[in-house]
Amino acid sequence: MPTLGQNQYGKAEVRVVRVLRDGATHHVRDLNVSVALSGAMEDVHRSGSNAAVLTTDTAKNTVFAFAREHGIASPEAFAALLARHFVASQPTIHRARIRVQEYAWDRIPTPGEGAHSFVRAGRETRTAQITHDATGDAPEWETLSGVTGLTVMNTTDSEFHGYLRDRYTTLPETRDRILATDVTAVWRHGAATPPDADPAADWDAAWASARDHVLGAFARTYSYSLQQTLFRMGSQVIENLPGVDEIRLSLPNKHHFVVDLEPFGMKNEGPDGAVYFAADRPYGLIEATVLREGAPARIPADLTNL
Amino acid sequence: MPTLGQNQYGKAEVRVVRVLRDGATHHVRDLNVSVALSGAMEDVHRSGSNAAVLTTDTAKNTVFAFAREHGIASPEAFAALLARHFVASQPTIHRARIRVQEYAWDRIPTPGEGAHSFVRAGRETRTAQITHDATGDAPEWETLSGVTGLTVMNTTDSEFHGYLRDRYTTLPETRDRILATDVTAVWRHGAATPPDADPAADWDAAWASARDHVLGAFARTYSYSLQQTLFRMGSQVIENLPGVDEIRLSLPNKHHFVVDLEPFGMKNEGPDGAVYFAADRPYGLIEATVLREGAPARIPADLTNL
Amino acid sequence: MPTLGQNQYGKAEVRVVRVLRDGATHHVRDLNVSVALSGAMEDVHRSGSNAAVLTTDTAKNTVFAFAREHGIASPEAFAALLARHFVASQPTIHRARIRVQEYAWDRIPTPGEGAHSFVRAGRETRTAQITHDATGDAPEWETLSGVTGLTVMNTTDSEFHGYLRDRYTTLPETRDRILATDVTAVWRHGAATPPDADPAADWDAAWASARDHVLGAFARTYSYSLQQTLFRMGSQVIENLPGVDEIRLSLPNKHHFVVDLEPFGMKNEGPDGAVYFAADRPYGLIEATVLREGAPARIPADLTNL
Amino acid sequence: MPTLGQNQYGKAEVRVVRVLRDGATHHVRDLNVSVALSGAMEDVHRSGSNAAVLTTDTAKNTVFAFAREHGIASPEAFAALLARHFVASQPTIHRARIRVQEYAWDRIPTPGEGAHSFVRAGRETRTAQITHDATGDAPEWETLSGVTGLTVMNTTDSEFHGYLRDRYTTLPETRDRILATDVTAVWRHGAATPPDADPAADWDAAWASARDHVLGAFARTYSYSLQQTLFRMGSQVIENLPGVDEIRLSLPNKHHFVVDLEPFGMKNEGPDGAVYFAADRPYGLIEATVLREGAPARIPADLTNL
Repeated sequence: MPTLGQNQYGKAEVRVVRVLRDGATHHVRDLNVSVALSGAMEDVHRSGSNAAVLTTDTAKNTVFAFAREHGIASPEAFAALLARHFVASQPTIHRARIRVQEYAWDRIPTPGEGAHSFVRAGRETRTAQITHDATGDAPEWETLSGVTGLTVMNTTDSEFHGYLRDRYTTLPETRDRILATDVTAVWRHGAATPPDADPAADWDAAWASARDHVLGAFARTYSYSLQQTLFRMGSQVIENLPGVDEIRLSLPNKHHFVVDLEPFGMKNEGPDGAVYFAADRPYGLIEATVLREGAPARIPADLTNL
Repeated sequence: MPTLGQNQYGKAEVRVVRVLRDGATHHVRDLNVSVALSGAMEDVHRSGSNAAVLTTDTAKNTVFAFAREHGIASPEAFAALLARHFVASQPTIHRARIRVQEYAWDRIPTPGEGAHSFVRAGRETRTAQITHDATGDAPEWETLSGVTGLTVMNTTDSEFHGYLRDRYTTLPETRDRILATDVTAVWRHGAATPPDADPAADWDAAWASARDHVLGAFARTYSYSLQQTLFRMGSQVIENLPGVDEIRLSLPNKHHFVVDLEPFGMKNEGPDGAVYFAADRPYGLIEATVLREGAPARIPADLTNL
Repeated sequence: MPTLGQNQYGKAEVRVVRVLRDGATHHVRDLNVSVALSGAMEDVHRSGSNAAVLTTDTAKNTVFAFAREHGIASPEAFAALLARHFVASQPTIHRARIRVQEYAWDRIPTPGEGAHSFVRAGRETRTAQITHDATGDAPEWETLSGVTGLTVMNTTDSEFHGYLRDRYTTLPETRDRILATDVTAVWRHGAATPPDADPAADWDAAWASARDHVLGAFARTYSYSLQQTLFRMGSQVIENLPGVDEIRLSLPNKHHFVVDLEPFGMKNEGPDGAVYFAADRPYGLIEATVLREGAPARIPADLTNL
Repeated sequence: MPTLGQNQYGKAEVRVVRVLRDGATHHVRDLNVSVALSGAMEDVHRSGSNAAVLTTDTAKNTVFAFAREHGIASPEAFAALLARHFVASQPTIHRARIRVQEYAWDRIPTPGEGAHSFVRAGRETRTAQITHDATGDAPEWETLSGVTGLTVMNTTDSEFHGYLRDRYTTLPETRDRILATDVTAVWRHGAATPPDADPAADWDAAWASARDHVLGAFARTYSYSLQQTLFRMGSQVIENLPGVDEIRLSLPNKHHFVVDLEPFGMKNEGPDGAVYFAADRPYGLIEATVLREGAPARIPADLTNL
């Protein structure tokens, strides 16, 4: 008879927007929240008995109610509140994993004192995942933060040569190329305490700092390979954010090919620049984990995004 | 025997990136160009004879070669150069419509003198369409500019009431709601001259100004309906950009519903704000053209985006 | 003062699923319905007064109620019912355009007498658009049917040569290539009567026949250009469906390039076939209208899909 | 100093189409292949030295060359050939993971003897992943097969009741509902030998059989919860495919809500059926692994798709 392995269930992609009014000045948090619960779920799989099941509809309601009751201090803190609640509230639920995607808004400047107009900012999405595990088989709390869709490009200071050659190698070496990627990164906070434990912790500032270090490392690294750039991006975060023990980056190499214009009697690359074809597929894909020395590796290689 | 009606062909979505090097300072233009040609094309449809056909591969090559030869001063000017070339170069081609989508990049600040690192900016896409018609059946030049994916939200100053009621009406009236939309707009420049005719014309500044007026009108309008907001957005562009004769806006009403928390003994809306559910589908969709008084309406109602 | 041009509003993408139970045998119609209304809407744009506005929420409710009350005989007949209702029910509404996308389901064979299990069929979407206009400025009824996402490929019987050559032409001629496209087609029924007028009309059969003729023409045409294939597809529909007066096709040329394997000492093309690279962008895009002789051209060139 | 953790690189999404000509009858395999390589890659991350790196461009070339040289017997066998090659060919490469997505084509029936016209079939994608590991730290070969995008619906024989209730529970119980989902499944073959080892193995038949058992279990299970249906789907595969030791299923609960028509004086549900609103987000998400008794669990919980 087949046996049941790892399982989880919940409500995915609850789109909750919290508007906080401070007089005429409004503040917005715009989240996409996914709840995944595990526990004593053998029966529901075998017989369909829902006696141990808190419904996904209830999970959705809880997200909205908690946003109202507790506000959304940060994706990490909000997710921790939810995870703690689900595990504490039902004896059949032993583990809760809360994922959050957050969309950023900039203010539209307006005259007068009201401040309630916004325009969606940037192309990237901030992510977070809190796992609260009461089984004793895993750390009680795990906090991941991340970013996805952060598209960057260096138009020079990138070389690529000295690689292996075999029967199928045709790529010419280059001393100057465009290096462009869409950054997806997930980093793990080392602290064993949940993100809502310390009210003084500024998760927004920590996230902004990590993002800035990723951007800065990308821009400042003179690159001989995308792997090298990736490792610098990860190292920069580890070296500058003492609370971060591990980071995994997934970087598509968005190829920009110098167009061959010689058939038209034209030279493309020159001191004034060049014209490139931005290709879609296939693309290189570089993935790696960077760790604080001695820290355990806990971000799964298959967890490419939150 | 069936007859042939309107027809056009060309290469769509040529992804061309132009890097202009000014010493250590680099400038980027990142375009997606689509070419559509019409003319003496009866034979190719009836017999398959390609004698009148400039291939779509050649159209693609021309985009790259022109980006190198002439640079990309603006989407509008670049498209005009291409349109003029296709019509002038082949007697069988009588009309060229060039569409351009442009993706914006911000600089990543770095120490030192180099400036060649970029991060993709904003979520919106700038658009343009130049049609050059030598048939005599239409204006010789038509210049459209536009934007898509500009997501905006007002968290107050929006009411909705006083509407018709019939058997199927259940919507409660509201004196305070979120108003959010993804702006897609296309505006027509009245000038009969092509965008590359006047080297002093600043198409980038004109586009930025139109975008700012759209944003500003959205933010400053106290709204009783999305139609009213749309009309203010369009009017603001017409009133402030003397070169623009017509604008068409397509605004999905991105519904944000106040979550009913009463079953949990909670009051949602209050002086401190509220929690909303951001819905996907269905959505209201409001579309209209706003015209300078006396100007002809030329943007097709079915042209929802460039 | 700016003036108001063409405008329309309504609820878009109402996802309605109708299950009809005939004992243990169930039938499903799965639609995505979009309503666009026009009429005496000057006030709502200028002052925000909604006195002439039937809300988009009511439009949504009406779609659901009509699906229950009248059933969904076909996308065309259902859309006609809705269009007639909106124009008839409110003096301020003078025109209604209803778009429908339909998703097909196949039965999953099961033992026993129940028949209520389904699997989504095919990749294509059936489309329809009914416009009911009471202004007198346009035909009172216009019926369009269509298809999108119908992906087809011929692995031979396609040549491409004899085209114009200019300075930018590099494409080699070919006597044997893959021809592949995603068919989007919209065809117009000539009848001036609405689709719900004749209960004997079988709109499902008519749609299936048009789809079959499009597929058959694609497969049976020995092609010298995609334009020729397009014209055959359109002609086949015009010639075989007496009720159809006009069809517009939009065909991306999904390029499949023969991979150059000579650098590896291999010959790619041979009597046993070849290996191709299926490219994404750019792609050729061929669009044309085919008409019954003497029929007016009414499908807008900018209406690329329903 | 930061340390390097798990890392891999390669070319993703190589779109290779193989046409095999058997006289006038053509056969097509249409794949999307992604290569991920690991090994002695410390240097390229630290210094940017590419001395140990086989470029992703070479990986792409190899995919095309192997499709020509060896043909594509099945996604599994083709991936195994590639994995074996990469690990065998370079001492610095110790592990190769090849992912394949395959798109299905049906024949368009045509008169005469030629058979070279195709239409894309179904909405689902067949998937496979072969991992060849020469490090000794993992099984030398691991073979996964799967499916994604298989959308199914039962219009009855689904109940939902007897679940936990807390402060946030409002969902009414139901004795009859629509149950619909998009199946994503990944199953692991127990054999320690690579898929290309046994020329008699029919991977296409095995995949079709697994798909049929998933469909059949969905259709035939009278369901009290989606978890129960999931477990039956997984068990059916384990019980009927002796080579499969483990399967993981990820099932979104695509909610179809009975529309409340009482405000319009209408009863929705009846013996003749009902009208439903097909919702987008949020959705329930049910994920679980089903194992052959005694088999190890090796499919990562975070590997939601191939």
